[in-house]
Amino acid sequence: MDFTSERHLDDGVLERAFTLGEIPGILWTPGAASASAPVPLILLGHPPLGLRTMYPRLVARARRCVADGFAAATIELPGSGERPARPALDQARADLRRAVRAGEPVTEEIIDALVLPLVDEAVPEARAALDTLLALPRIGGPVGYSGGVISVGVRLAAVEPRIVAACLFAGSFVPRATFEEARRVTIPLHVLLQWDDEHNDRQASLDLFDAFASAEKSLHAHMGGHTGVPHSAGEAAAQFFTRHLKEGRTETAA
Amino acid sequence: MDFTSERHLDDGVLERAFTLGEIPGILWTPGAASASAPVPLILLGHPPLGLRTMYPRLVARARRCVADGFAAATIELPGSGERPARPALDQARADLRRAVRAGEPVTEEIIDALVLPLVDEAVPEARAALDTLLALPRIGGPVGYSGGVISVGVRLAAVEPRIVAACLFAGSFVPRATFEEARRVTIPLHVLLQWDDEHNDRQASLDLFDAFASAEKSLHAHMGGHTGVPHSAGEAAAQFFTRHLKEGRTETAA
Repeated sequence: MDFTSERHLDDGVLERAFTLGEIPGILWTPGAASASAPVPLILLGHPPLGLRTMYPRLVARARRCVADGFAAATIELPGSGERPARPALDQARADLRRAVRAGEPVTEEIIDALVLPLVDEAVPEARAALDTLLALPRIGGPVGYSGGVISVGVRLAAVEPRIVAACLFAGSFVPRATFEEARRVTIPLHVLLQWDDEHNDRQASLDLFDAFASAEKSLHAHMGGHTGVPHSAGEAAAQFFTRHLKEGRTETAA
Repeated sequence: MDFTSERHLDDGVLERAFTLGEIPGILWTPGAASASAPVPLILLGHPPLGLRTMYPRLVARARRCVADGFAAATIELPGSGERPARPALDQARADLRRAVRAGEPVTEEIIDALVLPLVDEAVPEARAALDTLLALPRIGGPVGYSGGVISVGVRLAAVEPRIVAACLFAGSFVPRATFEEARRVTIPLHVLLQWDDEHNDRQASLDLFDAFASAEKSLHAHMGGHTGVPHSAGEAAAQFFTRHLKEGRTETAA
């Protein structure tokens, strides 16, 4: 892991860009003035639009994580941003756009081609990033995942034991394989759904939520379209991570 | 309105039983040591099991309301507790139990007979109670409704302009008429759904949520059966009322 730049944000957050092999990433940690005990880590997922495009939203989420006593980190997805293009992924995106423009159904084949190769590549990369990040001083476990591409979050939640809680955003296409993997997820989940999301199949999101095997899972549906997640939803997600990563609390009935 | 008893709870909450005509009720307000500015009111709904049976849950909800700077009040439902029996309601409940025990479908006729007369009687009573409660010193507007029987909450949200925000519990049978009334509801809503509620039709709850015309509505689904609403869900509902009754905030995207 090579740190390539470092700056202090105005709220005392230390932001460091890094590369892990050829994968760029960003790490946000409490500044030097903070207590030096290791803090839990939240891995921030994002859609495949490139870290540069996603930066304003990512840094806002990261600031909140650090304010709550966590470290936050994110890495570039395969084929996104400045990483080498994946022609097969680009082809799948072109097929998707063509189908949507033509008013045709988005077939399972298109969704599988769009999502599954991304998951197959992104999940091992995220796990390798955890190996490195958790070896840094002042970053401890446990790890939370706060999601972008939901199939990546589901696979990580199913296979990565260091991730003990996940906040998933039901806002992207879901391959059939993801439903099968959801049945193997048992960690606490906080699932966000934009009820009138123009890019999302609401019923698929509800079915996916139903499929998770987690004893503790909750679904939070809001109005406002794909990017209209309200401020209060961010608050609730932050409280979810505090309960599970810092207080180790299991939910009890009120 | 006659106050029939009064006691101070250990957290400084003043609890007063009252009768409004023949309707018993309970009012919880900040104790004398608190600031004397008028506080908003939250009307606590409950299932038709009688105030005495519901008291432990009601007082817990009321304590939280008062701690957050609200007054809370509840009145007995028609035909419940010590109020005169409603033979038609008792008959509808018997029909419901018989259908459920026999494994037969709960028909629209049974649901209408069970719920609609209750709504027709309970809603004007709740509105009359608001007239009286809001005339008390130290209780001001606006009013929130925190729900028991969802059809009562929907009707109140649709017709009572003093109620500016409602937290509804999707945990009871929903007559077709309630879906029609839902389309007239425009106030901010926070809807709770127990995902695996043995007493609830999940799809009907989702359809009802979809029907509300409110620009700001959110659905929060949790695991745990009918009475297993987790502690965090109570926190989120309390924050919803603080936003809408005290801060007058409309939600903005995060």
